[in-house]
Amino acid sequence: MYRLTVVYDFPPDEEKFLKHYREVHAVLATKLPKLVAFDWGVCESPDGAKPPFFLVATLDWASKEDALAALGSPAGKEANADLANFASPDGFKMTFAEITKAR
Amino acid sequence: MYRLTVVYDFPPDEEKFLKHYREVHAVLATKLPKLVAFDWGVCESPDGAKPPFFLVATLDWASKEDALAALGSPAGKEANADLANFASPDGFKMTFAEITKAR
Repeated sequence: MYRLTVVYDFPPDEEKFLKHYREVHAVLATKLPKLVAFDWGVCESPDGAKPPFFLVATLDWASKEDALAALGSPAGKEANADLANFASPDGFKMTFAEITKAR
Repeated sequence: MYRLTVVYDFPPDEEKFLKHYREVHAVLATKLPKLVAFDWGVCESPDGAKPPFFLVATLDWASKEDALAALGSPAGKEANADLANFASPDGFKMTFAEITKAR
């Protein structure tokens, strides 16, 4: 399994960010070709402290080839271009990894 | 689904870190009660650039209650204590989130 992990920093307007993420960005992401899983959530801390990130998302494909093809597809380009509509260029971090399923 | 996401910064000695993570820490993590899924991977970038993190891991439970009980259990305390054996206190970030499975 090949995973794209995206962590978003706290935005200036959390409500506006979430509305766009839910109604636009997540919808675009689900259209990525051969996407096996797409999980996301708003961060929290059990002790009520401010979490290190605002929102985390993982997108999984069966292989690196599938992932890169999806991101290079029209749907991938559309989702990528949409980032600028709700997040600043330095407001998120993306990383890829070949995933070991340990459980 | 309730998820603990852990992102680790690049350590001084990547090989040593990975050996400990694979052989000790990941083994301890799999012993966490009621753990539904545990996925981890070493970060990479398709363009060969240095990724923003060294390693990412997600641990999933059916509920927040299960997650917090697991982390407070003897196995959870052992896994938490083991972090000091391979990562510096500011060398990783943990965050929790109630997960929306969008795909």
